Amino acid sequence: MTRPRLTFWFEFASTYSHLAVQRAEALADARGVALDWRPILLGPIFAAQGWTTSPFNQLPVKGANMWRDMERQAEKLGLPPIVRPDPFPQNSLLAARVATTLAPETRPAFAREVFLAEFARGETIADPAVIGRALAAAGQPVESVLELAAEPEAKAALRAATEEAQALGVFGAPTFTTADGELFWGNDRFEDALDWALARG
Amino acid sequence: MTRPRLTFWFEFASTYSHLAVQRAEALADARGVALDWRPILLGPIFAAQGWTTSPFNQLPVKGANMWRDMERQAEKLGLPPIVRPDPFPQNSLLAARVATTLAPETRPAFAREVFLAEFARGETIADPAVIGRALAAAGQPVESVLELAAEPEAKAALRAATEEAQALGVFGAPTFTTADGELFWGNDRFEDALDWALARG
Repeated sequence: MTRPRLTFWFEFASTYSHLAVQRAEALADARGVALDWRPILLGPIFAAQGWTTSPFNQLPVKGANMWRDMERQAEKLGLPPIVRPDPFPQNSLLAARVATTLAPETRPAFAREVFLAEFARGETIADPAVIGRALAAAGQPVESVLELAAEPEAKAALRAATEEAQALGVFGAPTFTTADGELFWGNDRFEDALDWALARG
Repeated sequence: MTRPRLTFWFEFASTYSHLAVQRAEALADARGVALDWRPILLGPIFAAQGWTTSPFNQLPVKGANMWRDMERQAEKLGLPPIVRPDPFPQNSLLAARVATTLAPETRPAFAREVFLAEFARGETIADPAVIGRALAAAGQPVESVLELAAEPEAKAALRAATEEAQALGVFGAPTFTTADGELFWGNDRFEDALDWALARG
């Protein structure tokens, strides 16, 4: 019998994607669900909604609460204290192309390192040196992966993934989609999505 | 020793306020936290953010997911299946004025009845007959409460409550605020807010 599967759409600039990424492997393994890690860019999806930046920047009072909520959630989940990257949101294009280039089984370790650099150390994830350190920490060959990520194939694959997510109704991140067409939005729905995949995947 | 307290801001037109209202008393009682039930209007708060309707109407793809999420959450919480009121959002002015008029200890029963009429039966909560039935079901005198709710004092009290919420940073509903200045937004943070009040209230 194959394991139930769940698709995990995340965006490297997204705060709540950080919370989901850090706990994803342990949580999915504990429930026996296989996760498909799919990096996307929210920029084109937000633009299609008429937005030009993060909704947390468009509504300052909501943004202020999001950062406080992130601090509380990080503490609750046992993650390092939140350090806000500047600017926010970060330019996530390089990180997303690199993750797209990596084999699926190597994406989790790389993603965890990038999000820790961004939200636990406040580093600039558009900096190839930061991405290179994340690759090295994940046991990947830095130079060759960075070269692959700059190829047209990587750009096209990331664009296709974002379009696939948008066609499924993804409007934010993290989002979890199931084989039978359910969409669960947000780190707060991770457990519900796993339960759904287990019961009906 | 006095019980820890938590202020519970809710809006009668808000879908996720329904989920919080239906479980609020049992949840708070189980943890030994006293809840202050504060009805407000999100209309003036949304208007201050530049919005003219519910964000779920402004973003159809997000709105569609909200209704599906409400269906799943209602099932998970053991609530009746969701029936969408038409129009959405409902005009909640009458319900909010009536709830403001009621003594604090009678607000929970009235609120539960109104939200069930709205989201389990799809009734129009701007209709005085619907509100009257909710008052009767909550053991309240219908005529005299409706008369009180139409007085300038009720209107002023509701306006003041909404302004108080806005001054605290409330930007959506349900929202929970603590004596030491924390703000928790959303039904998904109800348990966290109770835990906070217990630990530091």
